[in-house]
Amino acid sequence: MAGMRKLDVAVLGATGAVGQRFVELLENHPWFRVTEVVGSSRSAGRTYAEAASWVLDGGPPASVSGLTVKPLDGELSAPLVFSALPKEAAEEREVRLAKAGHVVCTNAAVNRMVEDVPLLLPEVNAEHVRMVETQRRVRGWTSGALVANANCTVMPVVMALAPLRRFGISKIHTVSAQAVSGAGYPGVASLDIIDNIIPYVSGDEGKMETEALKMLGRVRDDRFERLDAITSATCTRVPVVDGHLVSISVTLDERPELDEILAAWRAFRGPEPVPGLPSAPAQPVQYIAQVDRPQTRRDRMAGGGMATTVGRLRPCPILGYKFAALAHNTIRGAAGCSILNAELLAVQGYITGFQPRPGTPAQL
Amino acid sequence: MAGMRKLDVAVLGATGAVGQRFVELLENHPWFRVTEVVGSSRSAGRTYAEAASWVLDGGPPASVSGLTVKPLDGELSAPLVFSALPKEAAEEREVRLAKAGHVVCTNAAVNRMVEDVPLLLPEVNAEHVRMVETQRRVRGWTSGALVANANCTVMPVVMALAPLRRFGISKIHTVSAQAVSGAGYPGVASLDIIDNIIPYVSGDEGKMETEALKMLGRVRDDRFERLDAITSATCTRVPVVDGHLVSISVTLDERPELDEILAAWRAFRGPEPVPGLPSAPAQPVQYIAQVDRPQTRRDRMAGGGMATTVGRLRPCPILGYKFAALAHNTIRGAAGCSILNAELLAVQGYITGFQPRPGTPAQL
Amino acid sequence: MAGMRKLDVAVLGATGAVGQRFVELLENHPWFRVTEVVGSSRSAGRTYAEAASWVLDGGPPASVSGLTVKPLDGELSAPLVFSALPKEAAEEREVRLAKAGHVVCTNAAVNRMVEDVPLLLPEVNAEHVRMVETQRRVRGWTSGALVANANCTVMPVVMALAPLRRFGISKIHTVSAQAVSGAGYPGVASLDIIDNIIPYVSGDEGKMETEALKMLGRVRDDRFERLDAITSATCTRVPVVDGHLVSISVTLDERPELDEILAAWRAFRGPEPVPGLPSAPAQPVQYIAQVDRPQTRRDRMAGGGMATTVGRLRPCPILGYKFAALAHNTIRGAAGCSILNAELLAVQGYITGFQPRPGTPAQL
Amino acid sequence: MAGMRKLDVAVLGATGAVGQRFVELLENHPWFRVTEVVGSSRSAGRTYAEAASWVLDGGPPASVSGLTVKPLDGELSAPLVFSALPKEAAEEREVRLAKAGHVVCTNAAVNRMVEDVPLLLPEVNAEHVRMVETQRRVRGWTSGALVANANCTVMPVVMALAPLRRFGISKIHTVSAQAVSGAGYPGVASLDIIDNIIPYVSGDEGKMETEALKMLGRVRDDRFERLDAITSATCTRVPVVDGHLVSISVTLDERPELDEILAAWRAFRGPEPVPGLPSAPAQPVQYIAQVDRPQTRRDRMAGGGMATTVGRLRPCPILGYKFAALAHNTIRGAAGCSILNAELLAVQGYITGFQPRPGTPAQL
Repeated sequence: MAGMRKLDVAVLGATGAVGQRFVELLENHPWFRVTEVVGSSRSAGRTYAEAASWVLDGGPPASVSGLTVKPLDGELSAPLVFSALPKEAAEEREVRLAKAGHVVCTNAAVNRMVEDVPLLLPEVNAEHVRMVETQRRVRGWTSGALVANANCTVMPVVMALAPLRRFGISKIHTVSAQAVSGAGYPGVASLDIIDNIIPYVSGDEGKMETEALKMLGRVRDDRFERLDAITSATCTRVPVVDGHLVSISVTLDERPELDEILAAWRAFRGPEPVPGLPSAPAQPVQYIAQVDRPQTRRDRMAGGGMATTVGRLRPCPILGYKFAALAHNTIRGAAGCSILNAELLAVQGYITGFQPRPGTPAQL
Repeated sequence: MAGMRKLDVAVLGATGAVGQRFVELLENHPWFRVTEVVGSSRSAGRTYAEAASWVLDGGPPASVSGLTVKPLDGELSAPLVFSALPKEAAEEREVRLAKAGHVVCTNAAVNRMVEDVPLLLPEVNAEHVRMVETQRRVRGWTSGALVANANCTVMPVVMALAPLRRFGISKIHTVSAQAVSGAGYPGVASLDIIDNIIPYVSGDEGKMETEALKMLGRVRDDRFERLDAITSATCTRVPVVDGHLVSISVTLDERPELDEILAAWRAFRGPEPVPGLPSAPAQPVQYIAQVDRPQTRRDRMAGGGMATTVGRLRPCPILGYKFAALAHNTIRGAAGCSILNAELLAVQGYITGFQPRPGTPAQL
Repeated sequence: MAGMRKLDVAVLGATGAVGQRFVELLENHPWFRVTEVVGSSRSAGRTYAEAASWVLDGGPPASVSGLTVKPLDGELSAPLVFSALPKEAAEEREVRLAKAGHVVCTNAAVNRMVEDVPLLLPEVNAEHVRMVETQRRVRGWTSGALVANANCTVMPVVMALAPLRRFGISKIHTVSAQAVSGAGYPGVASLDIIDNIIPYVSGDEGKMETEALKMLGRVRDDRFERLDAITSATCTRVPVVDGHLVSISVTLDERPELDEILAAWRAFRGPEPVPGLPSAPAQPVQYIAQVDRPQTRRDRMAGGGMATTVGRLRPCPILGYKFAALAHNTIRGAAGCSILNAELLAVQGYITGFQPRPGTPAQL
Repeated sequence: MAGMRKLDVAVLGATGAVGQRFVELLENHPWFRVTEVVGSSRSAGRTYAEAASWVLDGGPPASVSGLTVKPLDGELSAPLVFSALPKEAAEEREVRLAKAGHVVCTNAAVNRMVEDVPLLLPEVNAEHVRMVETQRRVRGWTSGALVANANCTVMPVVMALAPLRRFGISKIHTVSAQAVSGAGYPGVASLDIIDNIIPYVSGDEGKMETEALKMLGRVRDDRFERLDAITSATCTRVPVVDGHLVSISVTLDERPELDEILAAWRAFRGPEPVPGLPSAPAQPVQYIAQVDRPQTRRDRMAGGGMATTVGRLRPCPILGYKFAALAHNTIRGAAGCSILNAELLAVQGYITGFQPRPGTPAQL
């Protein structure tokens, strides 16, 4: 692969909160480089630096600041497209781009539960990626593909439970404490959340059932077979910037010892070639033994924001086991996951003409 | 009762956060007036205004500011004593005062689960007050008594579930979002809680089992008979000043319709003479139909901080029903509850020489 | 005045953040009662309870909840109109209502600096109210009038400085820490302000010069004569819900002793008949001697949110004197001030057919 | 310098908030490595991981976690000592260590204004370091030295004003908005600061005069000659985790154009060899043109937390110029500055037997 150049990528919805996270995380990415940014009609035609009201730390990377924002309905050159579009814009646009030959990795919710769209969390269900073949065959796509990542609250639950599948998961009860960045920008009004907890996050509770069970399930006969478990989710909004913390109670039919659960988390790495991907955290699930952890602010950046931290494992008198799980909602729960998904697609050969090897920098 | 004077009361631990709430709530109380304030050796001998680093809004009431703080080990004149003492100080001191003839209403945790101490939440278990007779008989006390109020996180759970006892409560699963004032002053360091959620509150989870089941149970043959239910509690600390919000899942064996639960809450007033007590809220449990309520900041002062607000009642696929409940942790969950308890004791004749009628101002 | 009924009032922009504060403060007002609520086209035709996304504590008062929101361009019956309209809507609409005979008390910025519009803060410049006569004469209005209240950051500065006018104010340097509620609803995005300070509030710095000097000046020959002083304002946004705290340095040409300043604040009540108005605080400027006060959360509700608290008076090596001042930005700095202004207009006879006496409840 | 090993360093007060920042910043330092950690009697004898209640993100570095905390009164081996001691402990202990031959870089306030102690901010006053020679001569020290860094609120003011010295600084008026981490741990109680601003920070206002003028002055005839300017400081505490933002008004006698000031900031690098030191930011003073910057959360990590960001430069009608400046209070305002100071001492030959060249990694 000597001499291989970085792959051009486009970011849809690049000026929004998650779009900005894509741009930030792709700065200095070893395989990908942002060459196109796409925004709403309000942003199109302006430079990215002008159009994006940057909400992350510092300012936008110099390499992207000068790009002119393209309109949503134009053509794109980049073979790989990351989408941070809102629901309405995403639905039809993403399919159209995949049909036109682009590999689309989307953070949008709208296509997640479509029958042939993998809902990918590589350490958990890398094998779901082969549904792309079905997708291409059924839809008549050639080089295009559409792959989604999960809701940002579902994500830490699925990551923490994946290593426990062997114990037979039958009931999953969750109560989340979700950061304001999960609602995008401007999102939650400060008048609504300073010194306040809101016991409701529109739309998120239903996703725990649909998305979590699809992700924890398997692919059989070209179909997703959901995990057979009962879920019950409560979602709340809390005054923190980033990081979704979830209190989880779970029934494990095999009734493992607590030590067996800890060992399962400790050993968990995900299947090959996931651990070697550039954005994969060294340890996807990190148990913190301190009694008062994980804490949102102090642990959200574990593994560069790509790891899920868990803690407080103890018996639940009602459901069997309980613990806390935390993930960075706009990194691992959104843009970072989409990027890792794209890395997996690349090494598996799903991006035409671009197949780096894990552990290898693209640009030599 | 024409001409009846207000009853002198003493506040133990008066300079602390809950002690200040006692002082604030008793200002302008129709039956009681603070005549003695008791503090640690560091405070004793100074005026209350000097000794108390006032953490509530504004400043201490003028009527109390000039009182000299008394030491913990001295004698007291007031027939009625409110205790906001920390654990170590409370244990022996409260019993000694009750033995000396004082009616002691305590917010301290240490004596709550003692066999003959009522854990009183008047709307819920006013009949537990007759255990004071057992207490006096067994301990040889004459005019003295020791009555406790519940932990501030247990309190909204018990209040919200009390009207549902008729449906057969068998499982109670709670996840709390607790205000920093619950930890007293200085309590939680700001470095620990700004932009952060802590998934742990020392000591509180165990109290959900012990205290809730005692409070929801009944008195039979001079003994407390706990409610026969399974509890599982998770307690978290969140960056809000006041107000504990609890996400509750519950199994009700009679499987009522949601409307029946709403009706039960709506109708709930607690037994006579509780609704007529000065500090009793007009409606102890208030259901808010807006999908995103109750909210900590906006609803904690419902009923002057004495009401419990509930919302988001819906089916729980795992346990049957789920909803959110909120109470003001230092008013109804602490000082305000102790004061209401004392009002009940007074009208029931447990305070020698002082028996106002409900609905009647003491001072004419 | 036996038998006098309450005066009907309309609230323009009633569903917004300041509009809601008007509705809340007018609940139980002794002289006024809300009979008309006016909103945007999105709100018009719905009940107030439906149209207003209530951002204050609890919910909207029952007496107003059922009113149907009227459109902005319709006729109004109420003689007295409070306006919480945004700039664009306010400019022409308020003048049209005054022309039609309504007394309009507005919180909008747009008409504040108009030559014949009193910028009223009753304790400070009650005599400015007679400019209404000029207004009526020049504009040909009969019963109508247009009176404004100041910007919410200017207000505590003017209130704190008013008692010091006798010492000769020549330089005023201010740095504010402004609450998010000052930006309305939804206003400041939570992503922008949690764990953050923003060193800029659009438009507010210029108002310190124009509005403060107009308010502290006097009326001569039918014209406002501004105070002859230099101002320099810096405005910052901070993560608090309500309350604007301002660090003020001031040059007083007479070089009074600090005690003289304290005495001036202590004695300050405003001219008759202001102290007797229903919404007037007992002491408009309250000095708090504690070294770390006034504090935003703890002191913003002083005098029911109508008083200005000051503290930390000390020499400024550069300008002479410095201190901190705090006011509740949506009560005294907005709706509450408009209401007090209306009370002054009423007792002075500017509201045709309605002239209560100070200290007298309207409804007997 | 081939084969040069890293220099052993000790951290005093290593378990506190600033001590932890030292440990964090020294992890992977190219020249220094922590080999001794010193704590109070409560910590001594325990491992660092046990003794330090880690308040920063994640946990303590593995290389330090296993070190046994040494008592305050013992001997130390490390030639270089960083001190994060509280006042009382620092005063005598730091002098004793310097006398014993250690180079002591201290963050403690107590020795800052001592006549022969440099108050070092390398880009600003690197030449002050030669006062160490006076120190050694007068006190009879050989290899020892005592060098301090400034108060964390003074620091951004001095850094932002240093490039403007050429314009003749005569008046400095500051109002700060200080993060809670500036008060250490546990420091500010959350009950005191959530939804609140405190207009007072004990002890900090006086330091603006003494420390800033010493730092901005020069060394002449073995004495510090303070800058001849008048200062007036107001310090407030705000609910942010890290980062002190200061609103500065300044009189510059030369009356430069705003562009000249911008150019002075842009060009500012500090004297050689400072720009080549490992912890020196590429650009010490960074002007951000966006009207609402610098913002505490978004800009505090500029230059790895070592740069000072400035913004909002504009005329001050009273003092001439005004702008905002921000620095990370526990990095550049504390531990990071001490480390940079030590780097300067090292390259200047003040650490016996250890003189790396700027731009050179120590360990080859």
